[in-house]
Amino acid sequence: MPKLNENYLNIKDSYLFSEVARKTAAYQEAHPDKPVIRLGIGDVTKPLADVVIKALHEGVDAMASAETFKGYGPEQGYEDTRNAIAAYYKRNGVDVDPSAIFVSDGAKSDTGNITDIFGHDNIILIPDPVYPVYVDSNIMCGNNNIVYISGTAENGFLPMPDPEQKADIIYICSPNNPTGACYNKEQLKEWVDYALANEAVILFDSAYEAFISDPELPRSIYAIEGAKKCAIEFCSLSKTAGFTGTRCGYTVVPKELVFQASNGTEMSLNAMWNRRQCTKFNGTSYIVQHGAAVVFSEEGIAACSENINYYKKNAKVIADTLTKLGIRFFGGINSPYIWFECPNGMGAWECFDYLLENIQVVGTPGAGFGENGKNYFRLTAFGSYENTMEAMARFEKLFG
Amino acid sequence: MPKLNENYLNIKDSYLFSEVARKTAAYQEAHPDKPVIRLGIGDVTKPLADVVIKALHEGVDAMASAETFKGYGPEQGYEDTRNAIAAYYKRNGVDVDPSAIFVSDGAKSDTGNITDIFGHDNIILIPDPVYPVYVDSNIMCGNNNIVYISGTAENGFLPMPDPEQKADIIYICSPNNPTGACYNKEQLKEWVDYALANEAVILFDSAYEAFISDPELPRSIYAIEGAKKCAIEFCSLSKTAGFTGTRCGYTVVPKELVFQASNGTEMSLNAMWNRRQCTKFNGTSYIVQHGAAVVFSEEGIAACSENINYYKKNAKVIADTLTKLGIRFFGGINSPYIWFECPNGMGAWECFDYLLENIQVVGTPGAGFGENGKNYFRLTAFGSYENTMEAMARFEKLFG
Repeated sequence: MPKLNENYLNIKDSYLFSEVARKTAAYQEAHPDKPVIRLGIGDVTKPLADVVIKALHEGVDAMASAETFKGYGPEQGYEDTRNAIAAYYKRNGVDVDPSAIFVSDGAKSDTGNITDIFGHDNIILIPDPVYPVYVDSNIMCGNNNIVYISGTAENGFLPMPDPEQKADIIYICSPNNPTGACYNKEQLKEWVDYALANEAVILFDSAYEAFISDPELPRSIYAIEGAKKCAIEFCSLSKTAGFTGTRCGYTVVPKELVFQASNGTEMSLNAMWNRRQCTKFNGTSYIVQHGAAVVFSEEGIAACSENINYYKKNAKVIADTLTKLGIRFFGGINSPYIWFECPNGMGAWECFDYLLENIQVVGTPGAGFGENGKNYFRLTAFGSYENTMEAMARFEKLFG
Repeated sequence: MPKLNENYLNIKDSYLFSEVARKTAAYQEAHPDKPVIRLGIGDVTKPLADVVIKALHEGVDAMASAETFKGYGPEQGYEDTRNAIAAYYKRNGVDVDPSAIFVSDGAKSDTGNITDIFGHDNIILIPDPVYPVYVDSNIMCGNNNIVYISGTAENGFLPMPDPEQKADIIYICSPNNPTGACYNKEQLKEWVDYALANEAVILFDSAYEAFISDPELPRSIYAIEGAKKCAIEFCSLSKTAGFTGTRCGYTVVPKELVFQASNGTEMSLNAMWNRRQCTKFNGTSYIVQHGAAVVFSEEGIAACSENINYYKKNAKVIADTLTKLGIRFFGGINSPYIWFECPNGMGAWECFDYLLENIQVVGTPGAGFGENGKNYFRLTAFGSYENTMEAMARFEKLFG
């Protein structure tokens, strides 16, 4: 009989979004006359930019004739796409070698699969609250030495390193999902210095970097000196270009990341990730990559930022309303997420029920993102402007 | 310092295709006047069928307006795509529940990632010769208890179970890459019965099933009674529909596959794979899945089979020539691969050099697929008809 991966018995079932959906559906069935506004969704809603649509059609057309047909592509991504990403980094002031860039079908795959190249006895720092994949993907492969680093109102949901705490691997997500909090350069420098001192690896998730408009805030960990010696960066077109359903991401594994095996052999994380991808991945669809290369052109970024600005306007509507109502919140400026403290001491799920029943606004209870979210609530800027305005008008009535 | 996955030190470097490319380039540079014909490539060359191109364009168009835009899709695949695959199985005489089907970006990802749900102390049977991913993906995660099952000329490169040998996990690829050999129903029944008797799981790779034209040969392991209790099946659109660069595959994990954990808890492989995919994968591109759904319609399969028939005609040209020349070979009928014994007792790489230097035909040395390939050579049917004819005319001159 096969021995199964029994670590799966230790993963918590995630009822977050299914429970949100269930409660919402039950309410709607009971009150068909009361229109519900959904601001819980962490997914984009605006169509792709025209210039990207054009490139995707070109990608399809290439598949239609023998002369331009594309079979197996490089597992690491097409040169055009990798160069376009490197040029995008460059325009944002960061030098990244295209050969360190691995194009994939999305940051979720890469942040999940990255555990493949590490051993199972590392001390792993993971923020709380945070995107649940970091914890689950580690528990799944038996990495149980997880130390939570606490994001709280006191530290602005931006936990800083504790010099007393040893670490081998450190997950950082900035701008953060779900809190929207974003590290500044000094703060990230502290993390980089801490990682270098501990010879630790930072796994930096910058999936929301395109929402950063403050030029002083780092959009990449490589904006910090020394980061190439200690950090892998995951990025995504999901929010940058609305690719949640089109699927494309990229991961940067600098060649400077070389560590010693127990027998003294030097092992390059770039070479290991390359081998992992060449063995267990066959590259991202040419059609999608052709679109992705255009996303990162100057014209593409300009077009995609129209959607981002639309979402940011929504975020501002929410942030302004919460400010006016005196409800403490985080995010909402350089992020599509607004993370607010549940009013009147409510718990996260209590707040969910309260908002649904009284003003028919659906959000996401913070409890789904970690212990520190149990009195918080996440709203997102991905709804329509009209719905966001209406939801906030209802907030003003309820809490004003 | 992070502890790395030191199993990576135990993976053999694969120089197969890079060495083939290097030798070919060196020859071409030295002999620019002698045109080389490449029949080594395991990749399709014909463009996608018109009906599939049309569907891919529709998929792109859906992304262009808010009303039809697709954000995050189900990790398991869209219902339409899963139903279309189930209907395709049904037309081939096999009942597969759509909820057992997981759509992915390709069979290489799934055959590689499937190790995630198993423990590390299983006895794993892997054919020799075979697709190198099975071995590498197991070595990478520390599954070192690999028993090779020998494919040889004597058993037609179709090794059968040894009742004395214990097994927990069994890899089978039929039609086989690289040998082209294909199990019949009686032979697969023996494997299923053996797996059931051992409570083992068969990992059945049927990526080349679309090349089977003999109605008596099973295109799916589920054509065999009892297989749903012991087998996971991997399949791909790469060869079925020319999707090597478009990227789509699917894996069937029947709900009947339930085993006991060491503490007696029942664990469903379908639930485990679902959890794996929901944690470390975010679904296949909507655009690609929309094309895939059309591939599996009756119209789509009819259109795609035109390309397959073109390749099969090439395979027949090669098979007929080798037969005429008295060179022993396998495959070439229900497969795009022809696996021949190197003439005159040559080794695989010796044969490579001999063919390149004398008749400028490039193939793949069998040694790259396992110990049992050391005197064999793989040709593929994916070239053009004209090149295949010319290559075989050169074979006749050389060996005739």
